[in-house]
Order: sequence, then C-alpha cells, then structure tokens
Amino acid sequence: MSAEDSLSFGKRLSVETVEEGLELAPRFNGQGLIPVITTDAQTGEVLMLGYMNEEALKRSIITGEAHYWSRSRETLWRKGETSGFVQKIAEMRIDDDQDALWIRVHVQGGASCHAGYRSCFYRAVREDGDQTVRLVFREKEKVFDPKSVYGDMPNPTKL
Amino acid sequence: MSAEDSLSFGKRLSVETVEEGLELAPRFNGQGLIPVITTDAQTGEVLMLGYMNEEALKRSIITGEAHYWSRSRETLWRKGETSGFVQKIAEMRIDDDQDALWIRVHVQGGASCHAGYRSCFYRAVREDGDQTVRLVFREKEKVFDPKSVYGDMPNPTKL
Repeated sequence: MSAEDSLSFGKRLSVETVEEGLELAPRFNGQGLIPVITTDAQTGEVLMLGYMNEEALKRSIITGEAHYWSRSRETLWRKGETSGFVQKIAEMRIDDDQDALWIRVHVQGGASCHAGYRSCFYRAVREDGDQTVRLVFREKEKVFDPKSVYGDMPNPTKL
Repeated sequence: MSAEDSLSFGKRLSVETVEEGLELAPRFNGQGLIPVITTDAQTGEVLMLGYMNEEALKRSIITGEAHYWSRSRETLWRKGETSGFVQKIAEMRIDDDQDALWIRVHVQGGASCHAGYRSCFYRAVREDGDQTVRLVFREKEKVFDPKSVYGDMPNPTKL
C-alpha cells in the first residue's frame, strides 16, 4: 500500500464543518481538479496558478514538493522534473469552502514559468483611458532559456 | 453603447503572440470563466480565488473595482456590494497563456471572505507525519460577523 493510499480526506457533510472544521475535505471540480495558487514563500509574489487532482494533492502533502495535474499533457506532474525548478512547500492553505488551495513555496533556481520567467504573471494589464487595453512587461529578462531547458518538448499553451 | 461594449480583446492567433505579445487575449474556460487570484496590495496575502466572465473582466478593467461572476448565485457580482468590502484594483496581471488573472487590491474594511475572515485562506493544512492531515486556523478571530452583514442571504458554499 502506498503512502497516498493511507491518506484519506474528510467527507463534506455540512457547510459548518467544511468552513469551520479541522478536517481537510477538498472539493474537486467536474474534471476532478482543484485550482492551486502558488506564491514565493520569500517574496510573496504569485508564481503560477496550477491544478491538482486527488493524487497530486496527496503526493504534495506527503512529499512536501509541489505536484500538479498537467492539463496539457494529461499526466501527474512533479514540478521541476524537467527543468530542475522544484517547489518545496513551506505552507499549504485551503479556502473557506475548500475548493481552492494556496501553497507558499521555495523554488530551487528561482523560476516557475515554462516561458522562462520567474513568475507566470510577468505582464500587467493597463487600461489607457480610451478603452484601449495594453499589456506591459513587469519582468524585463527571462531567468532561463526555455529552448535549452525543454528542448523539443511541446509547448503547453493552448490557443 | 456601454463602455464595456467598446472594449475588445485580442485574438489568440499564435503561442508567440499570446505568451510574448502586448495584446490582452484572455482564454475563458468551457463555462466562459477565467480564474482570478486576488491578493492584498499592501500585505501580499492571498485573499481569495474568484472567477470572472467576459463582462466581469471588462467591468473590472473599466471601473478599477473587482467584479466577479458568482458561481453560486449565477450573476455578475460587484465585490463588496452587500458587505461594503469593495476591492480597488491596484494592478491586474495575466499569466503566460492568458488563462488566469492576478489582481492586487486595496480592500475597504480589510475583509474579503464571506465567512467573516480577512482572507478566505484562513486555515493551513498540516501533515502530522502519520498520514493524518489536520487543518490549523491561521486567523484566530473573524473581522466581521457574517450574520449581521449578510442576514438571511443563502451561504454560497456548495457541498
């Protein structure tokens, strides 16, 4: 029996126990996923928004390293497996109705974005006052070169 | 013609333009929604994970106040309309593939959670080493009394 098998979640019996209780009773969506906000434990910066299925969540809890469900590759994804940018979980939090997670992580290498930036949120949305919206880069340089790290692996971005 | 009508988003023509371009071209999911991470602009704390549809996103950009799509009430939701805890947007960011948003906000009144806490993420997940998982409260006291603010409105938490 694996360590994941012996870890079980609580039942969602009442609003009271879900919101005010001490039992982890996550709600996975129709695709069996729960969204995860990942922030840098040192700077507080939001690094990415990922998704975990039940197995990824259990493995993250047991190993202390962030595991996600890759929606593009449709597979369990140990973050950093290819790039080396492993995310060590300093703290995991769950929200009121237990359908979203927040993890604070230490990132080896300091980058979390497949495009090479530190954070996936490297662009800000600016409204120019005349109903024109423009993006502005908040990171001027990539931390790493995606081609040299990922080679010919398919880009996960879907159009 | 409303201000929202005259605001238009870019087309998602290539991975290159979506990831490295200056045009806002958000990707809404099958339900027409995009997830939004909301953090406190002063403390950096994650306050909530919400969802916007196209109208909520446009209204947020134009007004500078956070609007969401309420999945429980199935309606456009100006955050703070009932509680008074309006969220003024200091900055909006979008991620690499433009399917997630991050907004940094100033909250009037300092609370964002319908359960009365400052952040929706008021509990941490702790693994006790023997495959037992427990939640630990990170906020000891509620900022406001939900009953006095929301009265008999239905609780949005779904089991």
